[in-house]
Amino acid sequence: MQQKKFRKEHALFLVEGQKSVKEFIASAYEVETVYHSEATTPKLLKLSHNIKSQHVSLSDLERISNLASPQAICATIKIPNWPTLQPADLRNKFSLVLDGIQDPGNMGTIIRTADWFGINQIICSEDTAEVYNPKVVQATMGSLCRIKLHYTPLPAFLEKAGLPVFGALLDGNNIFTTNFGAEGLIVMGNEGGGIRDDVQKMVQMAVTIPKFGEAESLNVAAATAIICAQLRRNAFL
Amino acid sequence: MQQKKFRKEHALFLVEGQKSVKEFIASAYEVETVYHSEATTPKLLKLSHNIKSQHVSLSDLERISNLASPQAICATIKIPNWPTLQPADLRNKFSLVLDGIQDPGNMGTIIRTADWFGINQIICSEDTAEVYNPKVVQATMGSLCRIKLHYTPLPAFLEKAGLPVFGALLDGNNIFTTNFGAEGLIVMGNEGGGIRDDVQKMVQMAVTIPKFGEAESLNVAAATAIICAQLRRNAFL
Repeated sequence: MQQKKFRKEHALFLVEGQKSVKEFIASAYEVETVYHSEATTPKLLKLSHNIKSQHVSLSDLERISNLASPQAICATIKIPNWPTLQPADLRNKFSLVLDGIQDPGNMGTIIRTADWFGINQIICSEDTAEVYNPKVVQATMGSLCRIKLHYTPLPAFLEKAGLPVFGALLDGNNIFTTNFGAEGLIVMGNEGGGIRDDVQKMVQMAVTIPKFGEAESLNVAAATAIICAQLRRNAFL
Repeated sequence: MQQKKFRKEHALFLVEGQKSVKEFIASAYEVETVYHSEATTPKLLKLSHNIKSQHVSLSDLERISNLASPQAICATIKIPNWPTLQPADLRNKFSLVLDGIQDPGNMGTIIRTADWFGINQIICSEDTAEVYNPKVVQATMGSLCRIKLHYTPLPAFLEKAGLPVFGALLDGNNIFTTNFGAEGLIVMGNEGGGIRDDVQKMVQMAVTIPKFGEAESLNVAAATAIICAQLRRNAFL
């Protein structure tokens, strides 16, 4: 499960901890097998009959685990193949678009932040970090179960989306005075290189987080958090 | 340099890459030795005579480096001992207060975000991640050279500060409608446990980032970014 090759071959990924496993069971994701070290777990989780469960030793769980302190429960989840996004799926809401995000911690944090702000769809370039990497899953802190991710070539996707496309760029409109309206796509770029040229061409409005100090740039997960907060701010005034 | 024991013994830490080394030379930090694989580097950097420089092989740099692709230049920097903060140092500005932040990536991102928003002082509990850890230094992307960090027991510090103390907590005031005024301390808590009880007692106003979706919490570096943006927002309207 630690290896992409293995995840791809079996179309499964790993989720650890009782809270996360419970959330995935209740979600649109399909849980394959629950592994647990305590015999009472299946009853406790009220597992239905279509979810397999297997009682294993703690040392087995330690071998499976990606964590420093392994949990008493984990589960394999089927890698979903969400239906291709239709224009209607994107209307009347905001979705994030990630162009080549590489760092698993950033990727997980972005998913968690999106979930906090009620953004449930993320469209990723095909070279964006694989979301089923255990480090990404861990960094989402369970939020992954509520977010649908789509990996697709971005220029073609953006061209057909038929929605306002905002992109986080330097020298764009001040995000604090931008009217984002009620729907749109927010494009965030790679950690080192930003949004690539072919994707930038599809951006209809460049937006920028104004700088008050000296840093050359912001971390992409921090920038995403600031922009998502700004999108929702009006709802809380 | 990768080990805390070694850094403490020699009171030195490592900075990699020409851009960062140049910024540290121009900063309040004291550069001890510049190591470079190209003979022209000292002239290029216009190194003054009180900074030692040493021509080394690329493979030496690789051995020193913390990075996957080592840079052609790095430097050892003296770990500073900033004078104890006086009440006057805190007036008419905002400073961050970190209570037990553990993750080096979060720590570095917080420093970089603070620098972006012109917050130049960070006061840390003594168990907050060591800022001279190479992973933290790297994640600050050079911003560390503009930020002064102080490690001190927080309850005593906050009691004597004589400033408004805001704390990021659940069920606090909506940050979007909070008047932060023109000065204060913003307390951010540990990744898992939040702000500890003895520090919470010193918080005068709990503030909260309103939730629009389902996530249980935000990553602390993401939350810090949202709050810092909110502090500066009025300057950009």
